[in-house]
Amino acid sequence: MDHLIEKTIRQEKIFSGKVIQVYVEDVQLPNGNTSKREIVKHPGAVAILPLTNEGKLVLVRQYRKALERVLVEIPAGKLEKGEEPLVTARRELEEETGYSAQSMRHLISFYTSPGFADELIHLYVAEGLVKLEEAAGLDDDEFVDLLEVTLEEAVAMLETKEIYDAKTAYALQYLQLARALKK
Amino acid sequence: MDHLIEKTIRQEKIFSGKVIQVYVEDVQLPNGNTSKREIVKHPGAVAILPLTNEGKLVLVRQYRKALERVLVEIPAGKLEKGEEPLVTARRELEEETGYSAQSMRHLISFYTSPGFADELIHLYVAEGLVKLEEAAGLDDDEFVDLLEVTLEEAVAMLETKEIYDAKTAYALQYLQLARALKK
Repeated sequence: MDHLIEKTIRQEKIFSGKVIQVYVEDVQLPNGNTSKREIVKHPGAVAILPLTNEGKLVLVRQYRKALERVLVEIPAGKLEKGEEPLVTARRELEEETGYSAQSMRHLISFYTSPGFADELIHLYVAEGLVKLEEAAGLDDDEFVDLLEVTLEEAVAMLETKEIYDAKTAYALQYLQLARALKK
Repeated sequence: MDHLIEKTIRQEKIFSGKVIQVYVEDVQLPNGNTSKREIVKHPGAVAILPLTNEGKLVLVRQYRKALERVLVEIPAGKLEKGEEPLVTARRELEEETGYSAQSMRHLISFYTSPGFADELIHLYVAEGLVKLEEAAGLDDDEFVDLLEVTLEEAVAMLETKEIYDAKTAYALQYLQLARALKK
């Protein structure tokens, strides 16, 4: 793969925040020329597709400041430093939905924006949901509505763009595929 | 949705690059408290799932500096300012693969990382591919290998993590679903 690799000549740290770090890198291209790359470092995240015993999806509605709008998504959250993704997934599910899951199955992991960011999302399917009597509660700066909907209702929300993000679109398509393969 | 909305109190521009802009915003939360949001603005992008007349997928292998590794992905590229996504999709397909498409169908659009970035990807399926005699060629700083693979081969690359990004994973699952529904 040497004919594709870009070597770092110089790295400048532009910003170090609570969540992201931003770098500008001067790189040497495979043909010897140079270029600049703008890179966002992110701790990574988990997302959970929670399915109730009735086969409904548990979704969260929340405000996304980056988009200046409300979105409906599957529950998700950032990895804490050094934390196993499965541990994060169980915690986020409990905090955001008040459900604990008897079964938590890893479905897929993927980079969300490899052109400029290193965010890796680990996606799980949560089943055997049990409502917690004492829910852990949300972070201080989190405000969400909980929804329990059928797959058909979720797909309709994709069409109206209430659902509008890659991980949730992937999760809905996964359920459609699982259902199609069962027939 | 007022009980979810975060109001901007102060916005600070941290970085303005060739591709991204980075902001830190002080926000007022629904309960009146304040918090900070780190936000990456991105011009948006297109991605294309090109299917040859033999039913093979045309993929590109390229180095992703943000990940410091090579990935195999469906062709993709950033929107130019004011450009219609369909125009970008036709251009990127020709530049990256040397194919022109007789049919270009919008499949879905989604935000890739709504937690911190506003990147919106528009995904198209390209069919009726015709090899161009004079290909437009890549940008000066782009180096890619072209691959033509079956769906089974692509799914195997997902398992080995040569394919490892959300838009390509979505596109492969879309083909699996289309095939399952045909049976």
